[in-house]
Amino acid sequence: MTRRIGILTSGGDCPGLNAAIRGVARAAYAMFDAEIVGIQDGYRGLIEGEWREMRRDEFSGILTLGGTILGTSRQPFRTMRVIGEDNVDKVKSMKKNYERMKLDCLVTLGGNGTHKTANLLSEEGLNVVSLPKTIDNDIWLTDVTFGFHTAVDIATDVIDRLHTTAASHGRTMVVEIMGNKAGWLTLYAGLAGGADIILLPEIPYDIDRVCEAVARRANAGKAFSILAVAEGAMDREEAAMKKKQRAEARAAMPYASVSHRIAAQIEQKIGVETRVVVPGHIQRGGSPSAYDRVLSTRFGVHAAQLIRDGVYGMAVGMHGHDVVHNPLREVAGKTKFVPQDHQIVQAARQMGICMGD
Amino acid sequence: MTRRIGILTSGGDCPGLNAAIRGVARAAYAMFDAEIVGIQDGYRGLIEGEWREMRRDEFSGILTLGGTILGTSRQPFRTMRVIGEDNVDKVKSMKKNYERMKLDCLVTLGGNGTHKTANLLSEEGLNVVSLPKTIDNDIWLTDVTFGFHTAVDIATDVIDRLHTTAASHGRTMVVEIMGNKAGWLTLYAGLAGGADIILLPEIPYDIDRVCEAVARRANAGKAFSILAVAEGAMDREEAAMKKKQRAEARAAMPYASVSHRIAAQIEQKIGVETRVVVPGHIQRGGSPSAYDRVLSTRFGVHAAQLIRDGVYGMAVGMHGHDVVHNPLREVAGKTKFVPQDHQIVQAARQMGICMGD
Amino acid sequence: MTRRIGILTSGGDCPGLNAAIRGVARAAYAMFDAEIVGIQDGYRGLIEGEWREMRRDEFSGILTLGGTILGTSRQPFRTMRVIGEDNVDKVKSMKKNYERMKLDCLVTLGGNGTHKTANLLSEEGLNVVSLPKTIDNDIWLTDVTFGFHTAVDIATDVIDRLHTTAASHGRTMVVEIMGNKAGWLTLYAGLAGGADIILLPEIPYDIDRVCEAVARRANAGKAFSILAVAEGAMDREEAAMKKKQRAEARAAMPYASVSHRIAAQIEQKIGVETRVVVPGHIQRGGSPSAYDRVLSTRFGVHAAQLIRDGVYGMAVGMHGHDVVHNPLREVAGKTKFVPQDHQIVQAARQMGICMGD
Amino acid sequence: MTRRIGILTSGGDCPGLNAAIRGVARAAYAMFDAEIVGIQDGYRGLIEGEWREMRRDEFSGILTLGGTILGTSRQPFRTMRVIGEDNVDKVKSMKKNYERMKLDCLVTLGGNGTHKTANLLSEEGLNVVSLPKTIDNDIWLTDVTFGFHTAVDIATDVIDRLHTTAASHGRTMVVEIMGNKAGWLTLYAGLAGGADIILLPEIPYDIDRVCEAVARRANAGKAFSILAVAEGAMDREEAAMKKKQRAEARAAMPYASVSHRIAAQIEQKIGVETRVVVPGHIQRGGSPSAYDRVLSTRFGVHAAQLIRDGVYGMAVGMHGHDVVHNPLREVAGKTKFVPQDHQIVQAARQMGICMGD
Repeated sequence: MTRRIGILTSGGDCPGLNAAIRGVARAAYAMFDAEIVGIQDGYRGLIEGEWREMRRDEFSGILTLGGTILGTSRQPFRTMRVIGEDNVDKVKSMKKNYERMKLDCLVTLGGNGTHKTANLLSEEGLNVVSLPKTIDNDIWLTDVTFGFHTAVDIATDVIDRLHTTAASHGRTMVVEIMGNKAGWLTLYAGLAGGADIILLPEIPYDIDRVCEAVARRANAGKAFSILAVAEGAMDREEAAMKKKQRAEARAAMPYASVSHRIAAQIEQKIGVETRVVVPGHIQRGGSPSAYDRVLSTRFGVHAAQLIRDGVYGMAVGMHGHDVVHNPLREVAGKTKFVPQDHQIVQAARQMGICMGD
Repeated sequence: MTRRIGILTSGGDCPGLNAAIRGVARAAYAMFDAEIVGIQDGYRGLIEGEWREMRRDEFSGILTLGGTILGTSRQPFRTMRVIGEDNVDKVKSMKKNYERMKLDCLVTLGGNGTHKTANLLSEEGLNVVSLPKTIDNDIWLTDVTFGFHTAVDIATDVIDRLHTTAASHGRTMVVEIMGNKAGWLTLYAGLAGGADIILLPEIPYDIDRVCEAVARRANAGKAFSILAVAEGAMDREEAAMKKKQRAEARAAMPYASVSHRIAAQIEQKIGVETRVVVPGHIQRGGSPSAYDRVLSTRFGVHAAQLIRDGVYGMAVGMHGHDVVHNPLREVAGKTKFVPQDHQIVQAARQMGICMGD
Repeated sequence: MTRRIGILTSGGDCPGLNAAIRGVARAAYAMFDAEIVGIQDGYRGLIEGEWREMRRDEFSGILTLGGTILGTSRQPFRTMRVIGEDNVDKVKSMKKNYERMKLDCLVTLGGNGTHKTANLLSEEGLNVVSLPKTIDNDIWLTDVTFGFHTAVDIATDVIDRLHTTAASHGRTMVVEIMGNKAGWLTLYAGLAGGADIILLPEIPYDIDRVCEAVARRANAGKAFSILAVAEGAMDREEAAMKKKQRAEARAAMPYASVSHRIAAQIEQKIGVETRVVVPGHIQRGGSPSAYDRVLSTRFGVHAAQLIRDGVYGMAVGMHGHDVVHNPLREVAGKTKFVPQDHQIVQAARQMGICMGD
Repeated sequence: MTRRIGILTSGGDCPGLNAAIRGVARAAYAMFDAEIVGIQDGYRGLIEGEWREMRRDEFSGILTLGGTILGTSRQPFRTMRVIGEDNVDKVKSMKKNYERMKLDCLVTLGGNGTHKTANLLSEEGLNVVSLPKTIDNDIWLTDVTFGFHTAVDIATDVIDRLHTTAASHGRTMVVEIMGNKAGWLTLYAGLAGGADIILLPEIPYDIDRVCEAVARRANAGKAFSILAVAEGAMDREEAAMKKKQRAEARAAMPYASVSHRIAAQIEQKIGVETRVVVPGHIQRGGSPSAYDRVLSTRFGVHAAQLIRDGVYGMAVGMHGHDVVHNPLREVAGKTKFVPQDHQIVQAARQMGICMGD
């Protein structure tokens, strides 16, 4: 059996991409007669026809490597709801290049945007398998995405380092943690880092509650507090606004980000010296953790199995401790948020951690 | 509501013990009127009556700390099947001290041996809750134990470091990985470290298959191989022996451990220079990983919930992504081995990794 | 021989403070009959009379601990040139408390500000020994300060992580690195992280040269560039300004920091997508590296020797590979900048790294 | 100016080899018209004529990579004193291949053995520059070798991890640390890891003194001790023996290594439970630390300068904080041991650390 497989990585880079690529390749080479085509910079390469045949040895030694050997780019479409003229042309180009490459199937590694486009291509008749990559952990129908736990490790290490400064200076520190509109990364890193206050996009916060929690610690003789704040966190007023209205309100504020705004409010309301740290892109870089290497490799091998069996239009994911696959159409267009009654949220509350509400 | 809680940590030390202790304490203090008694060095302290009242601030700042602030010791009973005179006395002492401490309940943190004794005490009428701690991941009715993923991280880092030496010198390296009689740690670290050959206790190996795999790589132009070997791995002859017979056979061998034996056999059979590394105790030391801090904390909080609700005789565990509890009697005395058809074993085979058989 | 020693840590916290404190204590206890008084929060505790007798066991287990067990605070005087009424009072308080504590001597751990005040107290007749602590490495008459190499490790790790994102996305990344007005941290981390462009306060940059270097790499087929920019870096115009004028010019700019300004200029001038990362306080937190533990310990032991020998008014430092001491008055008030012809600067130039000029 | 440069790495692999190679290459390409020939597996490739032209892009992205992209092998000569027939042939082959490759010069990266051979080739008329690579830090006329501080970091991390186990179980742990016949690595890692007893080859130990130190700590209420033991450590009897006699004495002992022997003696003499950890090859693997990346890069650039200036027969080294070069003949054949009165040894003694004597 011969299969000619195109692979692309799309969206923000993320630890585990190369491990997953290697998993697909090693299993494919071992299980059947595989040819692998690397498509450059995600969907951009598929649209513009930039690809190359991969040699078997190119998949050696990449298990531990951060980033992606295939390059990546942002999603090709601004909005998927309305596929305008321009987008129709892009889809045409992708289909034409798929044919030119003589692919039997396409493996896409990416997040929510990637899965949407993968589903679109699947509906257009291409044979697609998609793997869930994102540090945000916000993909539907998978318990966990690869990259997430490595990002948790990095963000936790950041909080650990700030702890010593906070404790030595008796300062309050606000750490802004990635995760887009979902709070997974902040929830896990906040708990692992021993944060005193954890603010998630899913639980709009009340700044007075936050200040109370800081003040309560100060009154109990703890000179410092650590706030783990999701980049997507919102206070109650913002949460009640419509999207456009919120964007306008934010543009009128003097603060670049939610974390700076919260710090300013704490200083103003209760006079506690507060510092902000925004670790930013370091949360998505570097070698994948052991956990993510195992996960990415398993996802990659599962994709090779699906290809061997000719099962397409699927999104690979984790259910409990099993790798599974679900129809792409059930995954595309949905976002997995932290449920307000998630066991970890409950555990945090039961320990007296302030969730902002 | 007031609850007076005794806590002890028993068996080999393991990352996450302090995080779990902190989880119990913080949730207990936050949820009800809790008094916490620290029992020194595991069951030894319970038998000999060595304990002390803990202050609330003793649970601060220990989340990231390796080891256990309570000390630990080996199991009190050599064998649980026959409770001889001596053991009867020990049980009596434990019950008497439980009463002297005026405990409402006892939280035990440990592995299989700890759970056995916890169950015994539960059957004797004490109120016991047990948390699953071990780097071996071999406790029944929990998908994962705390300490395991930190150990995977460490063992993977060891394999990563050996990779550069192996590749630079064109050498074969055998890494002996902990895990007692179970292969979980070796399986995960072997896959995460990109080992070429993974030998687990659950899959008896054939040394000729192992040598073939090394030779095959050499013939394919790969100058080196990495073997991840579980400390409990056995070849087929050993696996077929009875326990006593095996012990005698091993005592007659010139090698201290399975890894040295395999290395000698590879050198002798196919003339490939082979080195052994036995990282040993470093696999159980140091600060818990972010994953294990979250897990330990959740387990600790769950124990506090059970105490609040007066639910005893339980072993806390993980099922999928939920913390659960099961009757101690269903957990005690059983060992969770790697199933031969475990998805990760299958994935390893599908990638062409030699599993020794 | 009995010596009663006061210890304080002052200025920004820094890895190695606890290791140095432990070095003083362990050597003092071993060499003579020592009593140690911990002064809380640096000079603040000396002024306000907040201190406590330390127990010997309080110095155990702190070697690896980040931050400072004594707490710290900013310098007590805004400006040292003019000692106004208020400052005179502060000095009086410090002398009075020194007497109240019945100290034989005072060990101060800190940076340039700390050394200034230490010198002032020495001139006022107190017995002072000062240890050079700062991640900035900018203290006079010592080749290296403790905390510096740990900060280099952290900043290098940040650059490593950004490399994977930069390479995968073909993006230019600007990393803003601490160091106050000196470029040591940026120079070392920039070289260690493989930065393409390194901008130091000591070498005013020309934005056109910087853009040329980015463009040159792009033309040579390298899709990305990494800029390591010191927080104190200045372009030529700024460097030519007087301090007050510069502050005004900066206040009028729309950018919070030099790194954001450079990124905006690169995007505007040559249209290359550029991202900024400001790791901030994480550069001063966490456990000291092995290098800094050895250095801090040696400094601490040397301080204990000086106390044993009754040699005061000294600043401890490193000369080559020897720990030495110099009169505080020769160290106070000076700053050690990176010489423009430093061997590492030359090496960077010889490798084709752009230094901005 | 054109220079055709051969590069080889010889002896045990070591972090920083690739960083140094990159330093040579980047500076050479930037400073003059350079052609670089990679010689495979150290002197073996020079003898057997295995080499290849390197492309410029092969030196990209290797700064952080452990091991050596050129491969390495053991020294070509068993003993350098007597150059027998076989060795004469090897030297002839090396000279012939140097000519075949049309080299202007040869850069050798290695330890003491490598420098000896480099000096031999220099005396035979080849243009040689040698860089000091070894985790042992035992090369003459350089304050520090690259690889050393990375190994210190790793060995310190090992001791850190064992600390938690030792403290939790109240056990004595013996860690065997690399360093060949020199004690540098053990001295630094022992101090950085907070070891209680440090045994170096340069200071023969008395087992009774060691046992006394362990017992003294136990009596002072410290339940555990950490011993950092150099792989080359010897007791006084062994140290007094001649080399051959010592080898015979060791062969007659039931212990594989000095660390196991010491552990057995402690258990036997004072009945304290003692465990051994031999981290082995992990001490030489993985990515170089920031310190070693800077050092290796500087050494590499210095080699390129020497080549540019036509200065050969030189060993590059560090003197204080300056990179320098010395005649190879002054470096070859000597070993830099830890002086018995080294400042760090003195500091350790002053802190009450047992040095075994």
